[in-house]
Amino acid sequence: MGEQIEFNSEGTVTSAKGYLAGGTFAGLKTPGEGVLDLGILVSESPASVAGTYSTNKILSPSVTVTKEKAAGATARGVVANSGCANCAVGPQGFSDAKDLSALAAGHAEVDEDSMLVSSTGMIGVELPMALIRKAIPNVELTSEGGEAFARSIMTTDSRAKHASVSFQVDAATYTIGGAAKGVGMIHPNMATMLCFLTTDADVEAGFLQNALSAAVDLSFNMIDVDGDQSTNDTVLLFSNGAAGGAQITADSESAGVFQEALNQIAIHHAKELVRDGEGAERIFAVTVERAASSADARAGAREIASSNLVKAMVHGKDPNWGRLMMALGKSGIELNEPNIDIFVNDIHIVHEGIAIPYYADAVIAGMNVAEVQFRIALNIGTGVATAWGCDLTEDYVTFNSAYST
Amino acid sequence: MGEQIEFNSEGTVTSAKGYLAGGTFAGLKTPGEGVLDLGILVSESPASVAGTYSTNKILSPSVTVTKEKAAGATARGVVANSGCANCAVGPQGFSDAKDLSALAAGHAEVDEDSMLVSSTGMIGVELPMALIRKAIPNVELTSEGGEAFARSIMTTDSRAKHASVSFQVDAATYTIGGAAKGVGMIHPNMATMLCFLTTDADVEAGFLQNALSAAVDLSFNMIDVDGDQSTNDTVLLFSNGAAGGAQITADSESAGVFQEALNQIAIHHAKELVRDGEGAERIFAVTVERAASSADARAGAREIASSNLVKAMVHGKDPNWGRLMMALGKSGIELNEPNIDIFVNDIHIVHEGIAIPYYADAVIAGMNVAEVQFRIALNIGTGVATAWGCDLTEDYVTFNSAYST
Repeated sequence: MGEQIEFNSEGTVTSAKGYLAGGTFAGLKTPGEGVLDLGILVSESPASVAGTYSTNKILSPSVTVTKEKAAGATARGVVANSGCANCAVGPQGFSDAKDLSALAAGHAEVDEDSMLVSSTGMIGVELPMALIRKAIPNVELTSEGGEAFARSIMTTDSRAKHASVSFQVDAATYTIGGAAKGVGMIHPNMATMLCFLTTDADVEAGFLQNALSAAVDLSFNMIDVDGDQSTNDTVLLFSNGAAGGAQITADSESAGVFQEALNQIAIHHAKELVRDGEGAERIFAVTVERAASSADARAGAREIASSNLVKAMVHGKDPNWGRLMMALGKSGIELNEPNIDIFVNDIHIVHEGIAIPYYADAVIAGMNVAEVQFRIALNIGTGVATAWGCDLTEDYVTFNSAYST
Repeated sequence: MGEQIEFNSEGTVTSAKGYLAGGTFAGLKTPGEGVLDLGILVSESPASVAGTYSTNKILSPSVTVTKEKAAGATARGVVANSGCANCAVGPQGFSDAKDLSALAAGHAEVDEDSMLVSSTGMIGVELPMALIRKAIPNVELTSEGGEAFARSIMTTDSRAKHASVSFQVDAATYTIGGAAKGVGMIHPNMATMLCFLTTDADVEAGFLQNALSAAVDLSFNMIDVDGDQSTNDTVLLFSNGAAGGAQITADSESAGVFQEALNQIAIHHAKELVRDGEGAERIFAVTVERAASSADARAGAREIASSNLVKAMVHGKDPNWGRLMMALGKSGIELNEPNIDIFVNDIHIVHEGIAIPYYADAVIAGMNVAEVQFRIALNIGTGVATAWGCDLTEDYVTFNSAYST
């Protein structure tokens, strides 16, 4: 069998076999047509779980509780709410995170310790537990519930974000489904990026965690909307083996295609978050290549993707390469100015550190696209990495300067 | 005599005795009434000099040449141009920086090696040396030329920035004069922060450098407009002893008042740069106190001052303290959430990590001022530091997304 990976933009967390999901409106967000704010995802059978979490020193108790529960690398599911970050509310936050997961576990008829919890929304406000208690029974858990689950975790996201990828190993078809919500610190208060991934492959727990960490390093760790980092950021990956077949371990022949599929779905969601960044009109990819090391390439690409000035120049379709140079220099990575080449949408505009007299109108016109490509060749090594950012627009400021009160 | 320090908002680099300065229009910037783009500052007698420079790995040759010339800690003056950063133009940049300083030295009749050079403006464009050669003789060097010098280094600054402080030691009066130009990566291309300080006190060279580094750590290193760092940032301090009196060394009784005066003029200019940040409508001060260490306090205050979300909330007069918590947590410093207290303009809004039910209208009304004060008490140690930032406005984006071309 081939190892091609099939991408499905209509896929969801329930595209993978053996997962049920659903969502309801509990009253945490402003009511409206189709507005959901409480979702549950559950595996029909015990699953392995891997996770990566915010490194912010101020953490939502929802994250802390999930980290504790996921430490054993097995779980059955996750309950996620939007509209409230359950953060900076004192000891009540821990109590509420535990209660919320216990309520969801009871509804899904799984063990309390196996139900993880994620929250996103306003900080400094307690979860309205009475509303949640009343709403939990309304979450209909079905194998078609992935789209409702994706809607339940939206905050200022303009659209639900979900997709799936499938690949074959021998006779078996495996799927990885995903749901995500917006990066970008969100009006009216900072929010979060959440991503939940499900696979019906049976993946060994140690490899599952390593594969997820590697995929997150290539995707969610390489995007920037506004340089800020939430107290609630979480990525979870469940593996329940419902598609049958042999267990995938780090040594399996299929380890490579699994990793590739996982990278693909993670990068897809990461780019979707950037594309839907607050006020964003277009995104850009920055590839730093021929760096002294991969770490240098990553650091350089991330610094450029997170520069306000670069973001603003993408907004203005301005091939202002001096800002790329400035951000690169600020990153502190190893570089030699007379070796640097810069390409905008593959048009070579800087050679050996000096501007090539390029036809500016063509470069500007080329920047009027949904995804601008910057490529910076340092020409001193073999390290390569890509990061993504969105443009900085007047609307970003308007969104984020509105009252929370 | 007392040790009071007198501040003069009309002061300039020529307020200190024994300095001459002037500026002219050479044609590097768009012509206009009162527009100057080439200035020279010179001490009538040999001076000690101290400097701090951008740590960006891409440096303008003007910075590199100045660092080399100032290495001996003596100098006579500096020539500064606006309208062109003399950066990323290959070997020509070194040649031009040396020629520019030699031309200025010839005009001022001082040794070529004693004339430093600073450039600010568009990156990737060569200095128009023929225009400069023609204009240099028009720079009239006088003891009233400090204001013209300050105007010569402006880029998108809305006003010239200059001031002076004076203090007495025994019978002698000493002055420190200053000129600065805008931080904020500047339309139509990234630019720079430059600050030139002059004193007529005779300060021992080693102490002069240490005092300048300490003052810069409290001022220019604690401000943020947009998180980006220029290739050209430079602060220079000249000391010519023209006011007479004993030499000030680290052990002098007067070392303290000199340091205090230097801090005051440096902080004044730093805050002026923030106040004049692109699109800025108000500034804010962030004091982190009772941190585990000074280094932690500095890191926490700087992280908050450079957060886009905090900047946007200051623009919106929004007491959205969750964003202060988020930025604090992201800084990675030691903290204990249940110990954190937060004050906005001295109104206590968070106690032991939890919101106090405060009267929001009063806090919002209080934020409608030229300088908002945030105070975050970590209550785990004795470290304290203050940083300053400006609000993030729609105008910042509009400025910075315009074409360079």
